[in-house]
Amino acid sequence: MTQKTCSCDFTSAKGRGGKNITRLSRFKPNFSWTGIKSEEYKAEGEDWVDIVRHGLIGNQGETTKFHLRYFEIAPDGHSSFEWHNHEHVVICIRGRGICLAGKKKYQIGFLDTLYIEPKMPHQLRNPFDEPFGFFCIVNAKRDKPKKVLKA
Amino acid sequence: MTQKTCSCDFTSAKGRGGKNITRLSRFKPNFSWTGIKSEEYKAEGEDWVDIVRHGLIGNQGETTKFHLRYFEIAPDGHSSFEWHNHEHVVICIRGRGICLAGKKKYQIGFLDTLYIEPKMPHQLRNPFDEPFGFFCIVNAKRDKPKKVLKA
Repeated sequence: MTQKTCSCDFTSAKGRGGKNITRLSRFKPNFSWTGIKSEEYKAEGEDWVDIVRHGLIGNQGETTKFHLRYFEIAPDGHSSFEWHNHEHVVICIRGRGICLAGKKKYQIGFLDTLYIEPKMPHQLRNPFDEPFGFFCIVNAKRDKPKKVLKA
Repeated sequence: MTQKTCSCDFTSAKGRGGKNITRLSRFKPNFSWTGIKSEEYKAEGEDWVDIVRHGLIGNQGETTKFHLRYFEIAPDGHSSFEWHNHEHVVICIRGRGICLAGKKKYQIGFLDTLYIEPKMPHQLRNPFDEPFGFFCIVNAKRDKPKKVLKA
């Protein structure tokens, strides 16, 4: 079975530009939004594939101190096991998933909201048979994730 | 009919304290979350009543540069018509509602995401017959709303 892996952060789509103007991004039943392109990332040195990210807020000229992204991890996929100084807020909106955070393991379902503290090693996993989709809110200015080797 | 009105911002529940630790706030079918108290506000000089707010992220010790709140406006309710320098990100998760932003009027349904630019006069309304519930993400440091008199 192909492992589908992603980092919980990526190089953002800088340079797309845009204007800091009011706009409605309408939700579509396939978990995409009008005016928001999905992005499949292949960051240098990363080993994940087939991961979808939608940058809802943060790369179209907004000046918010935060970015809002939607990630979807396919069945059997998972993110890197990593840590960073910045915090995560994760809100599940599709399917369900697992988050490892330190020694704890959380199952996350619809609209469950997980706060991940600074420096906490964490990994998001989808061991289920439907896509695991979630909003992830982070500070606009943030450090890069560092990988953790699991014991 | 009683008008149910709220401001799109409130004095946050400072002083509640708490620790900056990883936690899961589990969603409950009545649109509340474990560990998150609902708050009914009566700010000085405001005229709204019966409005529910849940401060999901921002008043339990988190050091994020943003706050995440859930608001619910009852049928026939609306927020103040106001503006401020900070931006809003609104994500509808319950029912539907209307947002006036400048001269534009947006209908917002499930998972539609509205970005409201700085200084834009705006008002959220619920002319429908079920609760209109939405996440609202704002910068942690932000200016107070200023009321606008409608023409």
